[in-house]
Amino acid sequence: MFLEKDNQAPKRKRKLFVEDYVKGVLDNNRAMLAKTITLVESNAEKHFHLAQQVISELLPYTGKSIRIGITGVPGAGKSTLIEAFGTYLCELGHKVAVLAVDPSSQISKGSILGDKTRMEQLGRNKNAFVRPTPAGGTLGGVARKSRETMLVCEAAGYDVIIVETVGVGQSETTVRSMVDFFLVLMITGAGDELQGMKKGVLEIADSIFINKADGTNKLKAAATKEEYNQILHYLPPATKGWEPKAYTCSALYGEGIDTIWDVVGTYVKHTKKNHLFYERRKEQLSFWLHETLQAQLLNRFYEDPIVKGSLPEYKHNIENGMLTVTLAAQELLNKYDRNIK
Amino acid sequence: MFLEKDNQAPKRKRKLFVEDYVKGVLDNNRAMLAKTITLVESNAEKHFHLAQQVISELLPYTGKSIRIGITGVPGAGKSTLIEAFGTYLCELGHKVAVLAVDPSSQISKGSILGDKTRMEQLGRNKNAFVRPTPAGGTLGGVARKSRETMLVCEAAGYDVIIVETVGVGQSETTVRSMVDFFLVLMITGAGDELQGMKKGVLEIADSIFINKADGTNKLKAAATKEEYNQILHYLPPATKGWEPKAYTCSALYGEGIDTIWDVVGTYVKHTKKNHLFYERRKEQLSFWLHETLQAQLLNRFYEDPIVKGSLPEYKHNIENGMLTVTLAAQELLNKYDRNIK
Repeated sequence: MFLEKDNQAPKRKRKLFVEDYVKGVLDNNRAMLAKTITLVESNAEKHFHLAQQVISELLPYTGKSIRIGITGVPGAGKSTLIEAFGTYLCELGHKVAVLAVDPSSQISKGSILGDKTRMEQLGRNKNAFVRPTPAGGTLGGVARKSRETMLVCEAAGYDVIIVETVGVGQSETTVRSMVDFFLVLMITGAGDELQGMKKGVLEIADSIFINKADGTNKLKAAATKEEYNQILHYLPPATKGWEPKAYTCSALYGEGIDTIWDVVGTYVKHTKKNHLFYERRKEQLSFWLHETLQAQLLNRFYEDPIVKGSLPEYKHNIENGMLTVTLAAQELLNKYDRNIK
Repeated sequence: MFLEKDNQAPKRKRKLFVEDYVKGVLDNNRAMLAKTITLVESNAEKHFHLAQQVISELLPYTGKSIRIGITGVPGAGKSTLIEAFGTYLCELGHKVAVLAVDPSSQISKGSILGDKTRMEQLGRNKNAFVRPTPAGGTLGGVARKSRETMLVCEAAGYDVIIVETVGVGQSETTVRSMVDFFLVLMITGAGDELQGMKKGVLEIADSIFINKADGTNKLKAAATKEEYNQILHYLPPATKGWEPKAYTCSALYGEGIDTIWDVVGTYVKHTKKNHLFYERRKEQLSFWLHETLQAQLLNRFYEDPIVKGSLPEYKHNIENGMLTVTLAAQELLNKYDRNIK
């Protein structure tokens, strides 16, 4: 199957240079594409600058795809839907890359797309590229890798990028901030399902699809759809000037899959016309810059041995009313400054 | 009227010491209370440590109140409701402090509670203390001051603290994180009104009150109430194990004001029983510690002249695909480090 793993890449031990990666990606050499993504995902210091050089070289070839984020409650049939949707797009002649953001993959081991047997059909399609979620520890780490992997895939000629999220912690909002269109997959019995979803997920949805609208479930799904349309009416839209709507589909029977693409198409046309499409991408870039800076600044602080060592005691004193929050913060910062200078 | 301003405080120029403030507050001397809050709200470096010493001394006397956050769409009748609610509580023998968090007050000048003529009746009540929003610049600054003002008021014996927010930016979530109970005030025509509200406000509400349920508007308000109850059913609750409900009231005619207090009472009893009340306060303290640390770390970074000077160019290069976000962040951090060391 075409879902490359590095050990399937040429075994020659010849050291690879920036131009090797760049050329390999631009030629959409799947082995080199996989190797490049592995480089981008590497946590090793020595890989960092090489990876950044490669991405910098690829930047001019990025940004031309449509980026779609997909989330859903557990059991909504996300992977079945993505498999059907991705295959449908390939049949239309598109090149589809499926990425994932799952910060829980390390802990839970239940990494989305981690299981090679998933999306087998799509993985076998020569116009599709399926990549498991990177192991990145923090959400920020995983997100950074997925964002850069997205760029690499765009440079390799993939014109539709699907970013799947398992919806752990803030992962939906994180994925929302790296895609153009965000789809939330639901099933009937919504009320209870929704309880299990992170807050505000409906408010970042550009459309909601009620899956498993087949057989005896068809009517219930239609009713759920109406319920969501009503809720959506009361919520502020995720994208200015675009009213999110709910639809039904059946990933299993391939029904309503074309609707997803129709909705995305209308959305892209609409947001490109009013320039929101480009404005949002610009905003996303500066958002990511600030996110990266913030993550690093905070990480450096909290990983500082002095801070690490004294934080628990400060917390304890605050909780026991022996110290004000403001004073505790001040003292911690002073300790930190004395330590780094 | 009793809504003190500093120039109404004793004019003696005698320097005030920590113990003067502490004693004044504990005696609930309104002039000293106002003076202490002014000290807490001061941005002057020289006031910082004095203020923190005072609050530290007061800490053992804090935390015994019920903290209620109130937000609402413009025109929902927030101040009329707070006036009626506060007066009602005073009649029940409570001591009520009304604070505000409005980061927009400087810009818009339309500071909530800034206008002295507002809440006149409540301001005149000897068991009530009404304080305009502090001028704090950033939301974090305003919030810090309001949090500490809340503590000062608790030490002065106020057993119900109402924190009003105008709902600018993240102010609702900020206020939510400093109160026990969060009330969202609505009016009919909700759909459109809600559009004007910040995202997710319904999801931090412990209850929703539809105001202006009087005269010809009574039926419409009842209908709106039902609509909200339906939406709330689909949203995850703001407080684990507490199902938020919608009610109607008329601040103008004092109808349903007692209901607010009933709901709060039930809520407090419920959350104290399952210890969520105390757990949340603990979480709020550590939340505020991290918020304060983060705000300071970021502020120091972005205010750094070198960073300030080069940030625009980096942003420009990112937006024009000449530089990766990761690399830009790295370079900015290196410049910053070289500068502070």
